[in-house]
Amino acid sequence: MDFERLFRADLEKLKEDGNYRVFADLERRAGSFPKAHHHVDGTDTQDVTVWCSNDYLGMGQSAIVTAAMHEAIDKCGAGAGGTRNISGTNHYHVLLERELADLHGKEAALLFTSGYVSNWATLGTLLGRIPDVMVFSDEMNHASMIEGIRHSRARKVIWKHNDLDDLRAKLAAADPDAPKIVAFESVYSMDGDIAPIEAICDIADEFGAMTYLDEVHAVGMYGPRGGGVAEREGIMDRLTIIEGTLGKAFGVMGGYITGSTALIDWIRSFSSGFIFTTALPPTLAAGALASIRHLKKSEMERRRHKDNVAKVRLGLTRAGIPWLDNPSHIVPVMVRDAKKCKWISDILMDQHGVYVQPINYPTVARGAERLRITPTPLHTDADIAHLVASLSSLWSQCALARHVA
Amino acid sequence: MDFERLFRADLEKLKEDGNYRVFADLERRAGSFPKAHHHVDGTDTQDVTVWCSNDYLGMGQSAIVTAAMHEAIDKCGAGAGGTRNISGTNHYHVLLERELADLHGKEAALLFTSGYVSNWATLGTLLGRIPDVMVFSDEMNHASMIEGIRHSRARKVIWKHNDLDDLRAKLAAADPDAPKIVAFESVYSMDGDIAPIEAICDIADEFGAMTYLDEVHAVGMYGPRGGGVAEREGIMDRLTIIEGTLGKAFGVMGGYITGSTALIDWIRSFSSGFIFTTALPPTLAAGALASIRHLKKSEMERRRHKDNVAKVRLGLTRAGIPWLDNPSHIVPVMVRDAKKCKWISDILMDQHGVYVQPINYPTVARGAERLRITPTPLHTDADIAHLVASLSSLWSQCALARHVA
Repeated sequence: MDFERLFRADLEKLKEDGNYRVFADLERRAGSFPKAHHHVDGTDTQDVTVWCSNDYLGMGQSAIVTAAMHEAIDKCGAGAGGTRNISGTNHYHVLLERELADLHGKEAALLFTSGYVSNWATLGTLLGRIPDVMVFSDEMNHASMIEGIRHSRARKVIWKHNDLDDLRAKLAAADPDAPKIVAFESVYSMDGDIAPIEAICDIADEFGAMTYLDEVHAVGMYGPRGGGVAEREGIMDRLTIIEGTLGKAFGVMGGYITGSTALIDWIRSFSSGFIFTTALPPTLAAGALASIRHLKKSEMERRRHKDNVAKVRLGLTRAGIPWLDNPSHIVPVMVRDAKKCKWISDILMDQHGVYVQPINYPTVARGAERLRITPTPLHTDADIAHLVASLSSLWSQCALARHVA
Repeated sequence: MDFERLFRADLEKLKEDGNYRVFADLERRAGSFPKAHHHVDGTDTQDVTVWCSNDYLGMGQSAIVTAAMHEAIDKCGAGAGGTRNISGTNHYHVLLERELADLHGKEAALLFTSGYVSNWATLGTLLGRIPDVMVFSDEMNHASMIEGIRHSRARKVIWKHNDLDDLRAKLAAADPDAPKIVAFESVYSMDGDIAPIEAICDIADEFGAMTYLDEVHAVGMYGPRGGGVAEREGIMDRLTIIEGTLGKAFGVMGGYITGSTALIDWIRSFSSGFIFTTALPPTLAAGALASIRHLKKSEMERRRHKDNVAKVRLGLTRAGIPWLDNPSHIVPVMVRDAKKCKWISDILMDQHGVYVQPINYPTVARGAERLRITPTPLHTDADIAHLVASLSSLWSQCALARHVA
């Protein structure tokens, strides 16, 4: 078997389809986010404004967060030194898990090394260990949830995205005695639409199903304390499990789940992806703890963030650039062609100092290629005007459809 | 379905079997490792000496590492702010991947959020995407490799641990046209034995199989530059893929693979567990980079580490405490009973200030319960004497078998 030939042929195909990914080599600059250095060809650097970060609130450069991280390094050093069970539990982990449980109004919380792992490991373990369990998964669920479900080999039923009638019909058609889990997200990252959480919980309750909600694109940003969309709607108690991340609005890294004491202890005790991996470094736990505590009481970041999202949308509308309307903070500008999407992104970076990564397959379906713009509270009015003007000039060059404003 | 009752019943069973895990709530103290604070009951703390850390060389408190981490936080802030593809690639990642490729003499390297994810995602992707591929997996491979193999649903053949005849027989019995991957580790973490890497490569070559070597318990520690056992033996070029971790001897967090340019680019392009997750924070990449560069040229840590391993073994032998002989740095003291193992560990912690986590099922097989002792270069002679004396007193109390020294 010539493995190398296979690898090269697959890569060639990606390039032909315009789906080959080139990573932008960036240097984030604390204190001047969303500006960054872009390393070009190893030696040259270019200043760019980042418009596609998931550091949604700019907490990744917050002095509150970085001071906590510095302090934890001085106090505890670099890494955790082991798995959570074998010398790797640090007091910061314990404090952070308490804080996360409180954030979501749950009895307990459990940290994972990433949001990806928290979804994969939790769903994989629940579905792998509960006898005869079935999962009802929204068709737009994130890759990490899909992989966790796949890993478990449990019976799965995919329901149409945010479609309550379809969910109810599929639950009704299933074996009434089978234990059931309904898995979905609050804010869907690529289209920015939001699930009807309460109605989904009502239906799940009718059929005695557990509810699993991924709030990774909402924690820190929605709700009076940043507890997510379920907090905003006052229904956190309706969810069996709320999952979140420390790597987006909280600005650090790591994932978690929250739920009842027994459930958390059970996942802690049986989940391979939790047990057999080195714990998060104390400095990350400390940074996340500071970030969460800050965003629990500060509304300023969320307010400015909303203002800037509105300003970007208004600017795009005035320039006749079509964007996908949704009730969240994500501004998808649809291109619907992989090569064109990549080309626009390259020109934005090279000629305008604007960095928006093209979002192509497999992150979105073929034909749904887009520029996914994520305004932050730290973008200035001048940044917004420059983004809109740059896009507008490209829309003309590229003969892309415009809306009449 | 009463999910809570199921969770509680499973947890009750774990407790009855002595396999319920209680995490030691520690506070590592930079500058005084392997000493740590142990938080007891939320308020009290106790000083303990950690004897079970995977921060094998104490690099987790190295000033070289922590200085690099501080600098990266000042320069780049807290988190990476996105996936590697969507604004999350930082220049530190690029530099670290180059350094790792060089460490293992490979063309390229790819970072993952953990060693667990690097094994799971790489094996899962290789075995999931190469048509008709078969994997030949050592029976003692780590959970993360097993889960990656399981995830792929590829045909798998388990060969007897480190048994060359069995490997050859199983390769010979397989479909000659099927692409094949032989997956194994260098240092096996729990028994501390080391694979006959060269002979395994010879056999793999006979059958045209790709070789996948996990060196997580060896990188930083074996070989003149800390490239692992394969470097020590001068055979890094014989392995198709060398996988490692930044979370053990390098003292930080994260995992990686190294291999040919095409292979790394292919995993980068197709692996869900790599693509859809937030990148490592710049500070972790910077810390790991400093750690690797230091251990490439410094022999002191490796020399002192070996000396201390020898001292611990000699002390145990003199005290008549049996330990499992092996050619690595791991000193397993066999107890072979889950409850007794937990009991000894509790007394060591509470009465002697010695922290060695009991290793019970499922980390090791039932009946193979042990205290897994990991000496570091930073344990003093007094620490070693105290460990041996503490164990010796418990061996008498517990009526455990002794060797005659």
